[in-house]
Amino acid sequence: MSQERLVQQIRFIEELDKLKRVLRRTSLIGNDRRENSAEHSWHIAVIAMVLAEYSNAPIDLLHVLRMVLVHDIVEIDAGDTFAYDTQGYTDKEARERAAAQRIFGLLPADQGAEFQALWEEFEARRTPAARFANAVDRLMPALQNYHNGGGTWHAAGVDRAMIDDRLRPIGDASIELWTYVRGLIDETMANGLTGST
Amino acid sequence: MSQERLVQQIRFIEELDKLKRVLRRTSLIGNDRRENSAEHSWHIAVIAMVLAEYSNAPIDLLHVLRMVLVHDIVEIDAGDTFAYDTQGYTDKEARERAAAQRIFGLLPADQGAEFQALWEEFEARRTPAARFANAVDRLMPALQNYHNGGGTWHAAGVDRAMIDDRLRPIGDASIELWTYVRGLIDETMANGLTGST
Repeated sequence: MSQERLVQQIRFIEELDKLKRVLRRTSLIGNDRRENSAEHSWHIAVIAMVLAEYSNAPIDLLHVLRMVLVHDIVEIDAGDTFAYDTQGYTDKEARERAAAQRIFGLLPADQGAEFQALWEEFEARRTPAARFANAVDRLMPALQNYHNGGGTWHAAGVDRAMIDDRLRPIGDASIELWTYVRGLIDETMANGLTGST
Repeated sequence: MSQERLVQQIRFIEELDKLKRVLRRTSLIGNDRRENSAEHSWHIAVIAMVLAEYSNAPIDLLHVLRMVLVHDIVEIDAGDTFAYDTQGYTDKEARERAAAQRIFGLLPADQGAEFQALWEEFEARRTPAARFANAVDRLMPALQNYHNGGGTWHAAGVDRAMIDDRLRPIGDASIELWTYVRGLIDETMANGLTGST
């Protein structure tokens, strides 16, 4: 290996530290602070390990984990776009594409292309592995909101139809997990949305 | 799948949220706050993806990632034991073993045993995959300390021999990464240890 290759890789690794400063809209369970995108990425990676058995289609767990671990890195530049922020979604793709180019561009070309491909596959949601990675990414905020009196659903003033639209892709990955999450939403709505963030 | 199985898995997933509250001794690069064990686990998982090519022995990346993602979960109960805290290390194993039993015990028995085995393999450092997972776990604090004027090495008042003892296992996993890290330590010591935490 050339020393230059390793130096590029270390530079990328140092850059990743910044994802720990990107705050999501959701709060930890118990509600005392907002979650950052790095700890969120760890959480959904372990969730993918635990729940892989519920995938509708056979999936390669390594491929799912690599997608999950990489999918939020673009937020270092692009920031976290709140799921129900229709304004933010208008330029989300352009912002994230520029971020991917800069950040994955720090890596040696072969690895940069590999990371870029993982991120694009996650975003496109066309493969079973990408659908499952997206499902665990959407499942966790539902759990957090369930425990936090509605959480971001309450704060953003969204209605049941908007929540269903956002979370329905869970069913494309796993009928069983979507059935479970619908139950969580039902219960959260029945209790009334009282929480904050 | 039985509903009871999924309920146990979700209970475990909720418990994981607490790892985001466990603070390590090391700070983020730039030094403004201490890192938590969940975001640290994400970071070293991506590092393992980027640096796997430097392993001395062939490794199964999925197995490495699963170990890395799981290895700190016991800290939810046992807390983070600082690498240079000889007092804390006297009962570290007993504290962590009790934690593993409780936390992995939340899972269905087959998955609990699987997570327990991953954690034990990581701790034992006997397989090439475990040695590589340990290496990335030790590499990151070296990078953080390099950028933070010595960081925890300064704060704990450790000397070069103690740092080498702690980080030498990196060489068991990768000669190239250990050569690189030794260079980082040399440079940090030459600049003088001036940072905090």
